[in-house]
Amino acid sequence: MATKGFTPVQYEALPGPRLGIGVLGYGFMGKVHSNAYLKIPYSFSQPAAYPDLIAICGRDEAKVADLAARMRYKGYYTDWKQMLKDPDIHILDNCTPDDMHRAPSIAAAQAGKHVICEKPLAMTVRDAAAMLEAVTKAGVKHMTCFNYRFIPAVRLARNLLERGAIGQLYHFRGRYLQEPGHDPAALMEAVWYTSGTRSGILLGIGCHIIDMARFLMGEIVAVGGMVCTWNKERRNRAGQVEPTPADEANVAVVEFANGAIGTLESSGVATGHKNQHTWEINGSKGSIYWDLEDPNHLYVYTEEMLAADLRGFASVSVTTSAHPLQVIYLPPGHNVGWEYGHLHALHHFLDCVANDKSVAPYGATFEDGYRVQVIMDTLVRSSRTGRKLTLTY
Amino acid sequence: MATKGFTPVQYEALPGPRLGIGVLGYGFMGKVHSNAYLKIPYSFSQPAAYPDLIAICGRDEAKVADLAARMRYKGYYTDWKQMLKDPDIHILDNCTPDDMHRAPSIAAAQAGKHVICEKPLAMTVRDAAAMLEAVTKAGVKHMTCFNYRFIPAVRLARNLLERGAIGQLYHFRGRYLQEPGHDPAALMEAVWYTSGTRSGILLGIGCHIIDMARFLMGEIVAVGGMVCTWNKERRNRAGQVEPTPADEANVAVVEFANGAIGTLESSGVATGHKNQHTWEINGSKGSIYWDLEDPNHLYVYTEEMLAADLRGFASVSVTTSAHPLQVIYLPPGHNVGWEYGHLHALHHFLDCVANDKSVAPYGATFEDGYRVQVIMDTLVRSSRTGRKLTLTY
Amino acid sequence: MATKGFTPVQYEALPGPRLGIGVLGYGFMGKVHSNAYLKIPYSFSQPAAYPDLIAICGRDEAKVADLAARMRYKGYYTDWKQMLKDPDIHILDNCTPDDMHRAPSIAAAQAGKHVICEKPLAMTVRDAAAMLEAVTKAGVKHMTCFNYRFIPAVRLARNLLERGAIGQLYHFRGRYLQEPGHDPAALMEAVWYTSGTRSGILLGIGCHIIDMARFLMGEIVAVGGMVCTWNKERRNRAGQVEPTPADEANVAVVEFANGAIGTLESSGVATGHKNQHTWEINGSKGSIYWDLEDPNHLYVYTEEMLAADLRGFASVSVTTSAHPLQVIYLPPGHNVGWEYGHLHALHHFLDCVANDKSVAPYGATFEDGYRVQVIMDTLVRSSRTGRKLTLTY
Amino acid sequence: MATKGFTPVQYEALPGPRLGIGVLGYGFMGKVHSNAYLKIPYSFSQPAAYPDLIAICGRDEAKVADLAARMRYKGYYTDWKQMLKDPDIHILDNCTPDDMHRAPSIAAAQAGKHVICEKPLAMTVRDAAAMLEAVTKAGVKHMTCFNYRFIPAVRLARNLLERGAIGQLYHFRGRYLQEPGHDPAALMEAVWYTSGTRSGILLGIGCHIIDMARFLMGEIVAVGGMVCTWNKERRNRAGQVEPTPADEANVAVVEFANGAIGTLESSGVATGHKNQHTWEINGSKGSIYWDLEDPNHLYVYTEEMLAADLRGFASVSVTTSAHPLQVIYLPPGHNVGWEYGHLHALHHFLDCVANDKSVAPYGATFEDGYRVQVIMDTLVRSSRTGRKLTLTY
Repeated sequence: MATKGFTPVQYEALPGPRLGIGVLGYGFMGKVHSNAYLKIPYSFSQPAAYPDLIAICGRDEAKVADLAARMRYKGYYTDWKQMLKDPDIHILDNCTPDDMHRAPSIAAAQAGKHVICEKPLAMTVRDAAAMLEAVTKAGVKHMTCFNYRFIPAVRLARNLLERGAIGQLYHFRGRYLQEPGHDPAALMEAVWYTSGTRSGILLGIGCHIIDMARFLMGEIVAVGGMVCTWNKERRNRAGQVEPTPADEANVAVVEFANGAIGTLESSGVATGHKNQHTWEINGSKGSIYWDLEDPNHLYVYTEEMLAADLRGFASVSVTTSAHPLQVIYLPPGHNVGWEYGHLHALHHFLDCVANDKSVAPYGATFEDGYRVQVIMDTLVRSSRTGRKLTLTY
Repeated sequence: MATKGFTPVQYEALPGPRLGIGVLGYGFMGKVHSNAYLKIPYSFSQPAAYPDLIAICGRDEAKVADLAARMRYKGYYTDWKQMLKDPDIHILDNCTPDDMHRAPSIAAAQAGKHVICEKPLAMTVRDAAAMLEAVTKAGVKHMTCFNYRFIPAVRLARNLLERGAIGQLYHFRGRYLQEPGHDPAALMEAVWYTSGTRSGILLGIGCHIIDMARFLMGEIVAVGGMVCTWNKERRNRAGQVEPTPADEANVAVVEFANGAIGTLESSGVATGHKNQHTWEINGSKGSIYWDLEDPNHLYVYTEEMLAADLRGFASVSVTTSAHPLQVIYLPPGHNVGWEYGHLHALHHFLDCVANDKSVAPYGATFEDGYRVQVIMDTLVRSSRTGRKLTLTY
Repeated sequence: MATKGFTPVQYEALPGPRLGIGVLGYGFMGKVHSNAYLKIPYSFSQPAAYPDLIAICGRDEAKVADLAARMRYKGYYTDWKQMLKDPDIHILDNCTPDDMHRAPSIAAAQAGKHVICEKPLAMTVRDAAAMLEAVTKAGVKHMTCFNYRFIPAVRLARNLLERGAIGQLYHFRGRYLQEPGHDPAALMEAVWYTSGTRSGILLGIGCHIIDMARFLMGEIVAVGGMVCTWNKERRNRAGQVEPTPADEANVAVVEFANGAIGTLESSGVATGHKNQHTWEINGSKGSIYWDLEDPNHLYVYTEEMLAADLRGFASVSVTTSAHPLQVIYLPPGHNVGWEYGHLHALHHFLDCVANDKSVAPYGATFEDGYRVQVIMDTLVRSSRTGRKLTLTY
Repeated sequence: MATKGFTPVQYEALPGPRLGIGVLGYGFMGKVHSNAYLKIPYSFSQPAAYPDLIAICGRDEAKVADLAARMRYKGYYTDWKQMLKDPDIHILDNCTPDDMHRAPSIAAAQAGKHVICEKPLAMTVRDAAAMLEAVTKAGVKHMTCFNYRFIPAVRLARNLLERGAIGQLYHFRGRYLQEPGHDPAALMEAVWYTSGTRSGILLGIGCHIIDMARFLMGEIVAVGGMVCTWNKERRNRAGQVEPTPADEANVAVVEFANGAIGTLESSGVATGHKNQHTWEINGSKGSIYWDLEDPNHLYVYTEEMLAADLRGFASVSVTTSAHPLQVIYLPPGHNVGWEYGHLHALHHFLDCVANDKSVAPYGATFEDGYRVQVIMDTLVRSSRTGRKLTLTY
């Protein structure tokens, strides 16, 4: 590299605060989080901190080594307990399957690491409570990675609610619909929510719409609903028939602390819907809705500014300098992808750690993750008893 | 009229079966039904019967006389009991406010008239039961005028369900949203559902989405939900504060006899929604949805016929000769208006009377009206008790 | 009819101005116009005049007699020259095929009748000029029935333009797309624009989008474009191959007197489009667009009233009391059908005749019809010469 | 880094082909291309080659050094002539403003580098021809970076056309609309197309829709149209009035070699449109359309597979394993952003270089860039002469 005129640079030499990252898990979520860390340095005029990608951890050494190199980590671990001892790591980012959220998150907190954990926070309320207790006791920053809070259109919605543009809130209606299990002949392995952790639809995607409801509307105080499984068994790749281990769909009515009411729904058998995460809010002065399949637009109806003959739901492209959560290099109308929720969520967490800011209310804390867990648990009990239940957190 | 070449004609001399119509009520619904009767003769190549517009009945003589002449009735009555004695009238079409449905409908049946009654069938289950008993006992044809069953796109949906194109049914989600009461400052008189009959939103528009659910999915066997009023009092035109007499919104989860689950909702405070009546169905082989604010299209997702890379929800313009419920003079893409539901509903009833056909399953009978009433009543009880309730019809 | 309590009424006895109507032609347009006349009396709180449906005229006596009775005409003619002598008829409404527009319209004017003529005004500029000259000389009211001017959303657009809400106009882009000829195997008779009058797409539907352009943007001063036919011959029902007599599609660029530019297009081979008539306008302060397949909404973007983060194209349901061209009995969100353009157009003409008002600018006069004809003719010449041509009216 | 269990990795040590990249320009496009190179290694199960980010080049040393470090380049240059001497660089990726495309691209080819150049290829036909000649003579791979060819939905469209699903092609209608100059009071510097390179709208974004037309429909053989500027001068930041240096909008009609016709349009004053790049194609068997503001869906109408009552434009989410240009870690319905066009375009070029494949037909070569330049130039001449002109390439 003695070419004339060439000046070498080093990422590690950039001025500004730095935070060492250890990512646990190299599956879908491990890749998505790593991608976000790689993009943070050039997506903001001055990032809150430069993430140092110290290590990624996974049990299959060949796979984790390969991904670590492709995503420009310094190295990898195959044992998360070892990784938690690494002094260069300030943040443990837990991207494991749902049933592995508890132990590493608690151990990380105990090791003094700040902790990010993928959603749902845990498989049970008990686990979630233990995790919340651990991070609280350790005094570390903590975030449940509810990424949709950081989609620009969702943040704009929150801003509108905060500034009173929607008025008194009456209604929330939310749903998260996917389709992998719609065909009774689909193999067990092809239906993500029945394999691996056995989380099911409520834990798997229902948690997202519950988080959206709480983020936008405030606390849920009662829930009544049903959890369902139609295809009670499926054939697996080996040709054997297995019982379906978890729910395929759920529906609920809810009451909010502010007096509003809502419907919540999630499904893994909603044929035709690849990934429809959508909600609508109606208030006394306006309404807003959003759909993840059209993520860069917020649909807004407001009465105050417009003549009576011009009112209608406006399709607002949340991509201009007037909007929240923009990145520096994309002009108006240059739509961002699904990954940007994680980009902004993780950058927010870096900001909270680097500048000792509160993760709440824009980020979901472990407290939020715990409360979502309580709501899911209560919905399941409501389904068993046929009663609407008051929530106790 | 002795002009050369002029040949006079008479509507009354057209060959074909004829049925005498007496319409009770000259408000919104009286006009809409009368409009449908005027259009029937030229909307079909051969109408099932020519309606003779014998009389319309209302208490304000000046108003009813004026409308009767404008809508080409032969005459009018100001007392419905008198009208029921008119031997030229074969069908009593009851377009009165909800709290007047019972008496004239029962009297008409007792007088041997076939009876059409606007929705909801009654204000209470007891009234609905009495009305059902009366028409059954009298052996007359009867229809609750659930007009949306006769929107072409809704009938196409029913056809697709009947021919199995959607497969096993999993989900129904329906809502009917309007906005007249969204502003707490709106006067009592401006909020239709709180004035006059005091029906409220559930009776006023909630009945429609319940009927859609039953028409498309089959019987509902359990319901759990809530009925709400936020603006508990409003100022009236005289400047006095009055208590709001009825519900502003409601939400529910339901179970169907076929094992599917659903959410139902109606609201009169859904800011921005002029008249959004919408539902979606997901089944193992496909999905369909429809929205009254885009009434001429049915959105259809089916898997069987299309290559995997071509599947998506298709916006089907239900306006061609391949589609149900077309009128003879409108070419493809020449959209019909909201009024066409009533056009086809009333033509269907004429066909049932003239040709002794069954009003069910495409038309809603008083039995259907009664069952919808039971569901609404049960939802109100569920709201009071916080329990999901099994339906007993 | 001696039934007690029955009071007979007569449409003919209603107080208020009256105008006698003679409709020429009982096909698609004859039915649509007749339907409008039947609805006018009860669609407005006080119609400008009550139309007396004196006679409809057609050559097939059985068919015209049947339709006349169904649509409540007093009688019929089989010879339009006889009908024009009828002193009860004040308005000749010419609903014939395009190649019959000239003679009856001129004769009607000479007979002192006010004249409505369906679009396009004529088959040639020469015929249109003769028709314009005749009505001008006779001093009668005249209207080319460009019905889309009277769709409520289109009128709202015009209102917004008039009040300057869109600012200086830059762009118009309009198209009218249908599909009947898209399949090369479609029979000659199934492709409407090739049968009967041989009008072709430009005359048949292209005239509409040209009228929209002029109505909304002002005069067109230059046009350059192409007229095309791909399927140069088709098989007819008898199995013979015939040459296609007219164009299948056309495209053009235009300049407006106000300095704006535009594209215009119409097609009869636009597979999948049943009836997409759509245009968009961009100005310095806002933009608007409309689509006939979603006729009750106008999409509006305006900058002046809204905060920068709330701007977007709003879907305005043009169905409330704040909007133009509403009928008395339809509440907000109760969408009107395609037929309402004719309802309002014909009511406007009755108003102009009864109250000696100007048909322009909201209605299209024969002058407008003539100018559209000149533009179409010039577009055909542009296609032949490959030059953009300045218009001379 | 002696932590137990930690294994270091190096991106540079990954097995597989590698290609050294030198990016020229660190503005919007420099960042977008660099982002793509960073994502390629983990977006494909096995990338065609691993890009080595050798250097980025720009004149402002502080800025280029900062960005180079943030985007993990090994170093930077401030003189592109020096960079072209770097033996580690195999590909020169020219992301400079339009008026700097020529010289470095030609020099790179002469230095034996493969060359990617941003669109439009040049400011003039003469420059484009020289660039095409240089790469041809040098025998290097070359690509004009028309990124939209590599949006998955656009590629699906191309696939459908190739397999004949749309039949004989009749119509193309394309437009690219933005709004920065719509307000006459906007400052000169705020209107991107008038500052810097003075490219104007036709060169700046019109080239994209011309490329889309050629990519999907085949060669354009004639063009007639207009190029416009309404706001002929603007105030600059210093408060002085300057003449507007380039066009604000253009419209055209075109003929394709296959007999189809089309309209093309681009504008920088289309108020409300942040970035609407959209086209529609109608053929004898089907139609397709796409809109960059909803980039993950292709709208498809096909007749062959569906019953007549189920046909409609389907909204196809081009995000499943059945679709082209997917990345390994995103499940169905997890929408990609605008940046993915560049990701796939640059990966395609790496594949062509590493495996000596042809850049055409999926990538645009310099030949394509040259032909687009000829079309733009001819459109400008057509605007001056008022004639439709035959294209000579």
